[in-house]
Amino acid sequence: MYKLKSLLKSLYRYNKKCLERKIMDIMEKFLETIEKNNLIEKNEKIVIGVSGGPDSICLLHLIWRLRKDLNIEPFVVHLNHQFRGKEAKKDEKYVEEFCQSLGVKLFIFSYDVSKYSSEKGISFEVGGRELRYGLFHKVAKQTGATKIAIAQNRNDQAETVLMRLIRGAGLDGLTAIDYKRDGNIIRPLLDISRKEIDDYCEKNALMPRIDKTNLEAIYTRNKIRLELIPYIEKNFNPAIIEALWRSSNLLKEDNSCLNLLTEEELQKVVAQKNNNQCLLSKKKFDRLHIAIKKRILRRSIKQVKGDLKDIGFTHIENILDLIHKKNVGSRLDLPGHITVQLGYNSIDIKNNKALEKKNFDFNYKLNIAKTTYIKELSASIKLEIIHGSDINDNTKNLKTAFIDYNKVSGDLTIRNRKRGDRFKPLGMRGSKKIKDYFIDKKVPKEIRNKIPILCDEKGIIWVIGYRMSEEYKVDNQTKKMIKITYMEGCLEN
Amino acid sequence: MYKLKSLLKSLYRYNKKCLERKIMDIMEKFLETIEKNNLIEKNEKIVIGVSGGPDSICLLHLIWRLRKDLNIEPFVVHLNHQFRGKEAKKDEKYVEEFCQSLGVKLFIFSYDVSKYSSEKGISFEVGGRELRYGLFHKVAKQTGATKIAIAQNRNDQAETVLMRLIRGAGLDGLTAIDYKRDGNIIRPLLDISRKEIDDYCEKNALMPRIDKTNLEAIYTRNKIRLELIPYIEKNFNPAIIEALWRSSNLLKEDNSCLNLLTEEELQKVVAQKNNNQCLLSKKKFDRLHIAIKKRILRRSIKQVKGDLKDIGFTHIENILDLIHKKNVGSRLDLPGHITVQLGYNSIDIKNNKALEKKNFDFNYKLNIAKTTYIKELSASIKLEIIHGSDINDNTKNLKTAFIDYNKVSGDLTIRNRKRGDRFKPLGMRGSKKIKDYFIDKKVPKEIRNKIPILCDEKGIIWVIGYRMSEEYKVDNQTKKMIKITYMEGCLEN
Repeated sequence: MYKLKSLLKSLYRYNKKCLERKIMDIMEKFLETIEKNNLIEKNEKIVIGVSGGPDSICLLHLIWRLRKDLNIEPFVVHLNHQFRGKEAKKDEKYVEEFCQSLGVKLFIFSYDVSKYSSEKGISFEVGGRELRYGLFHKVAKQTGATKIAIAQNRNDQAETVLMRLIRGAGLDGLTAIDYKRDGNIIRPLLDISRKEIDDYCEKNALMPRIDKTNLEAIYTRNKIRLELIPYIEKNFNPAIIEALWRSSNLLKEDNSCLNLLTEEELQKVVAQKNNNQCLLSKKKFDRLHIAIKKRILRRSIKQVKGDLKDIGFTHIENILDLIHKKNVGSRLDLPGHITVQLGYNSIDIKNNKALEKKNFDFNYKLNIAKTTYIKELSASIKLEIIHGSDINDNTKNLKTAFIDYNKVSGDLTIRNRKRGDRFKPLGMRGSKKIKDYFIDKKVPKEIRNKIPILCDEKGIIWVIGYRMSEEYKVDNQTKKMIKITYMEGCLEN
Repeated sequence: MYKLKSLLKSLYRYNKKCLERKIMDIMEKFLETIEKNNLIEKNEKIVIGVSGGPDSICLLHLIWRLRKDLNIEPFVVHLNHQFRGKEAKKDEKYVEEFCQSLGVKLFIFSYDVSKYSSEKGISFEVGGRELRYGLFHKVAKQTGATKIAIAQNRNDQAETVLMRLIRGAGLDGLTAIDYKRDGNIIRPLLDISRKEIDDYCEKNALMPRIDKTNLEAIYTRNKIRLELIPYIEKNFNPAIIEALWRSSNLLKEDNSCLNLLTEEELQKVVAQKNNNQCLLSKKKFDRLHIAIKKRILRRSIKQVKGDLKDIGFTHIENILDLIHKKNVGSRLDLPGHITVQLGYNSIDIKNNKALEKKNFDFNYKLNIAKTTYIKELSASIKLEIIHGSDINDNTKNLKTAFIDYNKVSGDLTIRNRKRGDRFKPLGMRGSKKIKDYFIDKKVPKEIRNKIPILCDEKGIIWVIGYRMSEEYKVDNQTKKMIKITYMEGCLEN
């Protein structure tokens, strides 16, 4: 890393004229933020999102001034949102001229953001953000840039904290905007106030464009900026922006500590995971602090769902309730085809939509007096010989069946259904296709392939969780039985 | 613990009449809060602070209804603040009659809170709180009560969160009001809203007193309650109370997790501690996460100071800066006579006022070629023989001296000053009383007893940190020297 002090000296030599004219400069603060949060390294290419407003123009100008000392190269991306007609065209023109005057390469794009957003059923803000970030990444790839700089300031930070609190956020939400996210999105203006930015633009005669819609208290954020914050400044704390910004920085530290701890514990608690399923050890999970439990659940859901959209505090509370109640086999459906099921010694979080697409088959040979683990189902099956025919089963919450030992021919196996499978359901005379049985029982298509079936060499003994076969049932002639115990939600041990 | 469900059944039998009249009851919610947070055990005596307002009357009534089922006994404490004249007298009368009607024992006190507060230079609110809590504890002691119940509700909680955020609090501040504090202060109404309490009072015809000063937007809290919250309810989120209450409960979990972690780490990091001094291992401290570092510093300061009054975020930042800069010996003065000094391998946090009162003496015999630890000063002194008279000292940040080996008589010792001590300061002809030397050098009285003095059997060699003696100095006749290294802020190893 470069040394801040020596860099500043060199910069001030470079900008001697400014100093001579005694222009107040935010460069020192800007560099402190960059250094403290490791935002920019020497020799990087940086994409900068520039609307033409004071924030992004100030950001571009500051980075541009550092280009020689840090040997960095800025690339500007401007998106014309086609929303404010002539004004938008003027913004575009201004950014073009500004970049030309600095000798910075510019990428201009134009999209009908209103159309895009309404087609996707999202708000104009969310649509605009989606498009902009997509373009930033595209240009970064094209130019080989390793950072994307976004112009959000201390006031944006404070407004976001307040907005999130009003909605009732947790620690994660209250930390608001990050200095650095995903390793390459950086926000180096986050410690600088709107006032400082306006002053900077004025004193350097940058003449940024003013977005008039920012001055209308129509959106929640604008209302917070233009009404709520001035009200609090006047009546409660004139330094509210500073206070909120400080709070969010303190909360960021706490959040980062808890996230690190969660990461450590997650390594220990996760028994199996892939993109569609996450299996947690119930025993290890139980020992954790509630704050870490909640974070682990959120991370696991994110892992299998891809995001945390529509997953609220209540869902997490409900999962904890499910786990607390200890009813093995009970399950909870969450938005986005996610289910959480309490297994024998595991918590099973999975994405059913993704799993259903997966074409999987399994087939295990079973041994009497042994337990076999079926990895595909995270389940175990146990076979025991029992003499006599007296069925006395105290096993709760497990799927158990008893069959006549002498009716079994050859090896026992457990597998999923095959084309043409038939069996004679208990209590029925004739035999039936498994497919028709599933249809009759209204078993959802997507789970049919995952239902385990116990067989011997002659045929199907038990459609586990559904029906035994008539052919293997215990009767008053039975001398010797096999007790079959099927346990869902098991960890392999 | 009692079982909530069975308790509720019995309660509803007991309150059958209410149910028949279909009175909406907050008892279930109340019991849930009590159970979840372990607030009340069976067979306890409970002191309840009762002003006569809806909150405390509702609290008393709810606890009173539980008296038989939980075998608990309530004792009411009422303080007449002598502030609202006739109104205060009416409040007192009302509480008296209410307690009589329930058959609950009442303790009435009367203080001029305005006078008390202005004499102590504190606000009326703070003064009133000090007096009330003092009385609660007094009555608890007198009656053998193990809990003190305070009537704060969900709205109080939400208002506090907002008030703290406006001031710029960290996680600890934003968790606002605790369900349980110090093991015996409990707040069982914290999940119940002001509206629910008002409804309860009305439906049970309890006729509580209304404190009119609560309806005037003069104090910050009243202003938040009567202006800011209604404004947010109208313009941003009608469920703001619920949202803030949820936030603070989420933050409480996170805070409790971080506090537990801090407690664990604190055990490892603290090398020595008593009520006036806390010595942390620098090496172990350096490895911790910033969030834990800050908490450990706050706890250590609280330990030696008694509280955290006047200790702000900036002080903690300054201590971290001090540690980060690694200048051994550098120190920082904090409010309340607290100093933080960076030692050789320690961080030394102490209360100088308390230490100065302590009358301590020390006297250690030293061995050449050995290091001696002086517990009273958390310091070490090392003596080495060096041949020749060439003083070549590269030891930075340490107090070092060289003396002529042959000028020393008998054993070397290190001790604090004694009455009548004299020495001949380096470069001076005559000798001087140590006391006068300290006065001349303007050494603060409170630290004079703690200044280490190196002696042999003849006299004083070095007033460490101040002046060598003329009598032992190295000259061109010197053949053999003793190098003395004094290290402050050392851990004994």
